[in-house]
Amino acid sequence: METGIGGTVPAAGPRAEARSGGRPVEEPDLRHHGDAEVRGEGAGLVDLAVNVRAGTPPAWLRERLAASMGDLAAYPDDTAARRAVARRHGLAPDRVMVTAGAAEAFVLLARLEGIRRPVVVHPQFTEPEAALRDAGHRPRRLLLSAADGFRLDPAAVPAKADTVVIGNPTNPTSVLHPAEAVVAAARPGRLLVVDEAFIDAVPGERESVAGLVDEVPGLVVIRSLTKTWGLAGLRIGYVLASPRTVRELERGRPLWPVGTPALVAAEACCSPRALAEAEAAARETEERRDLLMATLSGFGELRVATPAPRGPFLLVEHPEADRLRERLREEGFAVRRGDTFPGLGRRWLRLAVRDAATTEALREALVRVGVT
Amino acid sequence: METGIGGTVPAAGPRAEARSGGRPVEEPDLRHHGDAEVRGEGAGLVDLAVNVRAGTPPAWLRERLAASMGDLAAYPDDTAARRAVARRHGLAPDRVMVTAGAAEAFVLLARLEGIRRPVVVHPQFTEPEAALRDAGHRPRRLLLSAADGFRLDPAAVPAKADTVVIGNPTNPTSVLHPAEAVVAAARPGRLLVVDEAFIDAVPGERESVAGLVDEVPGLVVIRSLTKTWGLAGLRIGYVLASPRTVRELERGRPLWPVGTPALVAAEACCSPRALAEAEAAARETEERRDLLMATLSGFGELRVATPAPRGPFLLVEHPEADRLRERLREEGFAVRRGDTFPGLGRRWLRLAVRDAATTEALREALVRVGVT
Repeated sequence: METGIGGTVPAAGPRAEARSGGRPVEEPDLRHHGDAEVRGEGAGLVDLAVNVRAGTPPAWLRERLAASMGDLAAYPDDTAARRAVARRHGLAPDRVMVTAGAAEAFVLLARLEGIRRPVVVHPQFTEPEAALRDAGHRPRRLLLSAADGFRLDPAAVPAKADTVVIGNPTNPTSVLHPAEAVVAAARPGRLLVVDEAFIDAVPGERESVAGLVDEVPGLVVIRSLTKTWGLAGLRIGYVLASPRTVRELERGRPLWPVGTPALVAAEACCSPRALAEAEAAARETEERRDLLMATLSGFGELRVATPAPRGPFLLVEHPEADRLRERLREEGFAVRRGDTFPGLGRRWLRLAVRDAATTEALREALVRVGVT
Repeated sequence: METGIGGTVPAAGPRAEARSGGRPVEEPDLRHHGDAEVRGEGAGLVDLAVNVRAGTPPAWLRERLAASMGDLAAYPDDTAARRAVARRHGLAPDRVMVTAGAAEAFVLLARLEGIRRPVVVHPQFTEPEAALRDAGHRPRRLLLSAADGFRLDPAAVPAKADTVVIGNPTNPTSVLHPAEAVVAAARPGRLLVVDEAFIDAVPGERESVAGLVDEVPGLVVIRSLTKTWGLAGLRIGYVLASPRTVRELERGRPLWPVGTPALVAAEACCSPRALAEAEAAARETEERRDLLMATLSGFGELRVATPAPRGPFLLVEHPEADRLRERLREEGFAVRRGDTFPGLGRRWLRLAVRDAATTEALREALVRVGVT
């Protein structure tokens, strides 16, 4: 199997070839993202490719944002947003940096001085590695094994790694690593970067280490508000880290890097009302994912990557996933290709969790295209 | 006079002292901006410190932006905005990069590879120099002379400069350099960066070199939509440059660096209707500035820096400007200190151009605080 290797391999250049499982595979395009599947010709497709919650942003948030349009003549001020995020996580405001999406956070982190031996745990969201490369690094990859359900063994992280990037729950595998295993990767002098972009889709935000940034040295947690709240277009996320790391990250940022509407959204999405809504949405996602799992289990050719997925998406293996993806497009469904994730290959697809009607429609489409 | 020297001086470190006019002056805080004057205790003051057009954003633009709040679940796509900006300037879309305000453009420019000998023409907006310093450069300063009305002599630009930054019209002097003088600073192998953040406040955008980026090698024009349109809180501007420079600037940017509302605004502000409104606003600004000039001329102690100001603000000299600024705050007016601009000092203040009633109220306040 293409993906069945553990251990670290140096990441190849974008056009180079990497060896995986003994045979050369093309180096994946780290800059491919799900939104490309629903652009242009894909505009009319049912979107199972982008992991943004459907029906968002909710009306109350749209109204709150629309109301802020009268205040745009003033320069942005992030004080209230930082305070709201800090309060929500029980941290001091100097441990919070509000960012233009998680994407800005990855770029700022990659530019931190002192990074020499970064390790990225794969398969995962590709931007952290792409940002490290752009900053001149050659990150090593710790490839988790498909045979092992992509389980994280903190002991497998190279001892010399001074920066480790882990996604939790992981995009695209949907694996939720135990907080214990994540924190076990912390070391003195090491930045432990945990991308929790999807953890607000997990009921109770179970296994989140966000509240531990004042206890675990070097811990940096990245959060996103774009998935649960449908704010991908607004670009809003935040970083939780030590005050010193926050100051270092702020250095060299443009003035006023986050606009007022995004700051208004950050504050609004930390309110008790918003947190309760996110929790309800997470429980609904859980039910919908169970249904999607049950539906897919009716097809022997399809195999879900992990027995206990926890994200709002599933990673699915099929012998001819590439061809299946094309056929599904003809049937009106856009799904996310898996072959652009290091450690995966042409046998994998990622499916966003949607409502029961969409899952039933997908089942019918799978039958039509001949999946058994 | 503190400011009466021409020629270039190396910029000192933030805490170091620079020599100007033969005596040491404290190195200005490049990161001070007008919005600090109206924050906190200054919140209730009449704002003459921030150069954003009053009464903005206009209702039609607010509504257009509010309507885009339903589309935020999708990732931003800058295609339409780039095209609209390109069309407005008669350029191809590959010469356009939409940015999170002019501030992001300065940071991206400062990080371009190959910059060795940057020169910043001062006094001007301080972010270009601050961004160059953050990127590890030690820019030289070409200080224009107050005695000379801050006139630009392109021959004074050091021949070896590989990057030259000019503001036009210049913040804070309000001087509009002839396009001819600006373009005369171009050289093979040199980046000529022209900050036109305020040129849409000049009727006919006279002296703009925006349309020349496909003719003048190395020309880079930076524009802002935040001042005329009251979008400082939204962060929106753009760069016009060669396709190659645009590609180099894009490198290392975070994914989706500009959000959908800002892209919607960029497109909207390039429409014929918006351009006509900006032109009308520019003419109104001209009348209001003439009135402010006439009003200030009634005070012998005050001297406007240039006989022909063209920006939506005036630079004013007063023997005790620092003290005057404090007294005006007591009278309810926030004005911009001048001493944080390299080449200026404690004798200078910047005043935003406002409506007739505000100018009359300012006149009365000046009388009350004893200016003669």
